[in-house]
Amino acid sequence: MNPHFQPVAPEHASRLVNHGPTVLVTSAHQGRRNVMAAAWSMPVEFTPPRIAVVIDKKTFTRELVSASGAFALCIPGAALADLTYAVGNCSGRDIDKFARYGIEARPGPALGMPLVEAGCVAWLECRLLPEPHTEEAYDTSFGEVLAAAADSRVFANGRWSFRDDNPLLHTLHHLGAGHFVVASQTIRARPL
Amino acid sequence: MNPHFQPVAPEHASRLVNHGPTVLVTSAHQGRRNVMAAAWSMPVEFTPPRIAVVIDKKTFTRELVSASGAFALCIPGAALADLTYAVGNCSGRDIDKFARYGIEARPGPALGMPLVEAGCVAWLECRLLPEPHTEEAYDTSFGEVLAAAADSRVFANGRWSFRDDNPLLHTLHHLGAGHFVVASQTIRARPL
Repeated sequence: MNPHFQPVAPEHASRLVNHGPTVLVTSAHQGRRNVMAAAWSMPVEFTPPRIAVVIDKKTFTRELVSASGAFALCIPGAALADLTYAVGNCSGRDIDKFARYGIEARPGPALGMPLVEAGCVAWLECRLLPEPHTEEAYDTSFGEVLAAAADSRVFANGRWSFRDDNPLLHTLHHLGAGHFVVASQTIRARPL
Repeated sequence: MNPHFQPVAPEHASRLVNHGPTVLVTSAHQGRRNVMAAAWSMPVEFTPPRIAVVIDKKTFTRELVSASGAFALCIPGAALADLTYAVGNCSGRDIDKFARYGIEARPGPALGMPLVEAGCVAWLECRLLPEPHTEEAYDTSFGEVLAAAADSRVFANGRWSFRDDNPLLHTLHHLGAGHFVVASQTIRARPL
């Protein structure tokens, strides 16, 4: 466990993924588990907090999520760029990626999904909202967030705080082919 | 028109939104038009390029998109932070936001959607893929990209290039309440 993690209120959960970070999708069923990277996710509802995520139908993750009806999104910090790219480029059918890459995970409070806190800055544990048509036609799965937490050094009171003194906790946004942009410089809009 | 804009090949279109930028959703039908901000969009398929975007059922944009079967996503650069926030906080039912904020738009090549190039760094013109259930249950609309283009100073050969010499062309990622993180610092993952 990461002692800096604090629960995130349901009404603030969408903020965790509002800015489009690349996430790790974790899953487990009957003793098997997996972790993959996903650049394609978004919130779809504030209350109850719901999200959509693209999980290709050929992946092992999809198999586990369909079987368990649950998954988690763990948000890697900049420190995990290499790992995020690595777990996005091999299949959990062949290896246990947690063991292969030395990824520590603990079972989530709501659904027992594997939660990664070392190097990650937040997680959202989700119940699958079965939608057979969009899962088939668009590889798009919907989920309702039942529990969420974030590293209080970078997310507190419903707000991200990317600063010069917490660079390894800034989120990653995959541009493609292993290139990421890091969420660092923040600006505030002025009223027009 | 912005002379720096160059067509983006269909197989590269998903790259434009892969890293989670906040977008402007533009729409038009029978002489009425609108522009709203949306933080919630994502690619769902590479080929053909398809995307999902959350458009609340109460918005004027939703009404226009349903009527025309088309929309565009225009990706604002950092120079448009104030405008992006402004068009996300008023309704096009009451005012023509293009006129109110002096936003120039030209009709798209595929579907005639209003395309914003001044201050924007890319656009994707999309045909709505009608999905009544997800539009109703999750406010989530799917679209297929029929044409796309990007400012060649920041996106060329299928890749973003956020550099110190093009800061106003960096994409915006909404954190909430008018705070944006700007896509500036890029890193490349190393093999593990």
